[in-house]
Amino acid sequence: MLHDWGSWDTDFNRITAQVCAQLVELVHARETHVCVPLQGSGTFSVEAALGTLVPRQGKVLVPNNGPYCARMLRILGYLGRRTAELLFPQDMPADPVAIEAALIADPSITHVAQVHCETGTGILNPLTEIAAAVARQGRRLIVDAMSSFAAIEIDVRTTPFEALIAASGKCLEGVPGIGFVIVDRAALERCAGNCHSLAMDLHDQWDYMNKTTQWRFTPPTHVVAALHAALEQYAEEGGRAVRGARYAANCAALIDGMAGLGIKPFLAAHVQAPIIVTFHATADPAYDFKTFYQRVREKGFILYPGKLTGVETFRVGCIGALGVHDMVKVVDAMRAALGEMGVALEAIKRR
Amino acid sequence: MLHDWGSWDTDFNRITAQVCAQLVELVHARETHVCVPLQGSGTFSVEAALGTLVPRQGKVLVPNNGPYCARMLRILGYLGRRTAELLFPQDMPADPVAIEAALIADPSITHVAQVHCETGTGILNPLTEIAAAVARQGRRLIVDAMSSFAAIEIDVRTTPFEALIAASGKCLEGVPGIGFVIVDRAALERCAGNCHSLAMDLHDQWDYMNKTTQWRFTPPTHVVAALHAALEQYAEEGGRAVRGARYAANCAALIDGMAGLGIKPFLAAHVQAPIIVTFHATADPAYDFKTFYQRVREKGFILYPGKLTGVETFRVGCIGALGVHDMVKVVDAMRAALGEMGVALEAIKRR
Repeated sequence: MLHDWGSWDTDFNRITAQVCAQLVELVHARETHVCVPLQGSGTFSVEAALGTLVPRQGKVLVPNNGPYCARMLRILGYLGRRTAELLFPQDMPADPVAIEAALIADPSITHVAQVHCETGTGILNPLTEIAAAVARQGRRLIVDAMSSFAAIEIDVRTTPFEALIAASGKCLEGVPGIGFVIVDRAALERCAGNCHSLAMDLHDQWDYMNKTTQWRFTPPTHVVAALHAALEQYAEEGGRAVRGARYAANCAALIDGMAGLGIKPFLAAHVQAPIIVTFHATADPAYDFKTFYQRVREKGFILYPGKLTGVETFRVGCIGALGVHDMVKVVDAMRAALGEMGVALEAIKRR
Repeated sequence: MLHDWGSWDTDFNRITAQVCAQLVELVHARETHVCVPLQGSGTFSVEAALGTLVPRQGKVLVPNNGPYCARMLRILGYLGRRTAELLFPQDMPADPVAIEAALIADPSITHVAQVHCETGTGILNPLTEIAAAVARQGRRLIVDAMSSFAAIEIDVRTTPFEALIAASGKCLEGVPGIGFVIVDRAALERCAGNCHSLAMDLHDQWDYMNKTTQWRFTPPTHVVAALHAALEQYAEEGGRAVRGARYAANCAALIDGMAGLGIKPFLAAHVQAPIIVTFHATADPAYDFKTFYQRVREKGFILYPGKLTGVETFRVGCIGALGVHDMVKVVDAMRAALGEMGVALEAIKRR
């Protein structure tokens, strides 16, 4: 990131091409899919995928068990695409049987838009079973894999999808600034002229890059170069299985440590993805999130606020360049912060 | 850029707020306008401004003397907004008299979308006179100031505009990755629900940031932090006047040096902005741009290809962390490259 790359110079174009090839390979999609990178946050790429791939007369089923599912519905509202919402409780995974029934009941549905790991709660949706149901019914699947990509196994040969969206940060451990869509090449080729937006037009982005090897509009060169370096580090670490196992160990250490404080996760263990954990806030009147956040921050760690309505929660991430020893320190920081606040925790009481 | 900021942490939000306040101040718009930053390239912000501010029934006059003017027409085509194109030769500035006549002739035109410095050629359009004409006719002005902002004086009190778009790179000398729109606050407040896109919805972006101090979706934190540092360097250098004068000296040194090689600029001196210079390629049969580019690149400098149809040109930038001594070296590199290629240049012949 300390080098200024010429944004359309051959050296930089080579970096982009290598990054795209590696990302496609991560989901074993080299034979069928291409990777189209896009400037902006991950949400920009989600909108680009929906706006480019769903025909104007299409209809999208959105299984909804969290805020990022709801965001896809909001995007589709902007785009004027018809939607069907299948609502699940936020602590329950999307149900492939219910999804298949909804597809059977409504033949006008062309696409299913599914969040893999819902970052708002940390729940893992059963992507392989959902993909199978969608394929059986002859519809197309668009996957928001923002927080699962590169940590949780996704194989297009067993989990067929038309498009899958992720970004440069999160489990790839790059810096934020670009997203990307891994998209079925034949499907993308049919989408010329479908998109509502020049900036979001994945077909145009891909077509130009394909012809010139360059980005259409100035890319965030430092972010792309950082992603290239991050992918090297990913390979050096041992790839998907090793990184996924590290995050799983982080997650287990975190949940164990919090149990020692008497603080329980919002989700049941078997639906918890090893990415981000939502915890119930303590009911102690001495607790408030702002003070807690500030005191933990002073000790060197930044928490996430809860993203649920109706339940007071907070979230702790398990991803990034962190190991179990870091998670132990995070728990120590939270224990100390709560103690300073005068919160009567079980573990603290036991001392 | 070597620090990982929490993307919604207070320390980072303070950086964003400081950056926005400084950008508004650069065009003396603190009383009337707000700065809305947006992830992505500058073109994303151009689309966001047009899509958010132009009503669905609006009509936009685009004075067109280059590729970035044409890009605004293309964006408006995607958005389904009505347009009127006023075509000028690429070596002639947009004419305020012709613009005013077009506005008088067509009262259905609501907005004028004007590129300030057309980066495709390097021509400077007379923004103050155009702004006055637009204001006299009671229409609204949207300015693409991508390559002029922070180097060429723009004062909203004498050059009234509804919105002005620029980006983190170019004359601010930050790294690419965000754009921003400096927009009339009262006008923006009227635009809820107008935009075609969630990602591009400037009203939603501003409304959320205004309420929470945070970005709506993950910002490229390293890019924002770099822009903050770039603005400090800008102030240390002496601000707009000093930076503009440095670029003007760079531009003069470049054009003088190239004259010594017998290579002439595409534009007349009085319409040349001190940002990027388009040069006529030599007609010598030994010349081709690819070889020339490659040989100059080996000497440490990256040229821009020409962006004109019908005329063989190339472009050389005058902006960035460069001084006159660098421009002399660039000319030396070009002289050497052409000599190696066996191009019979006037200056080379004279030796």
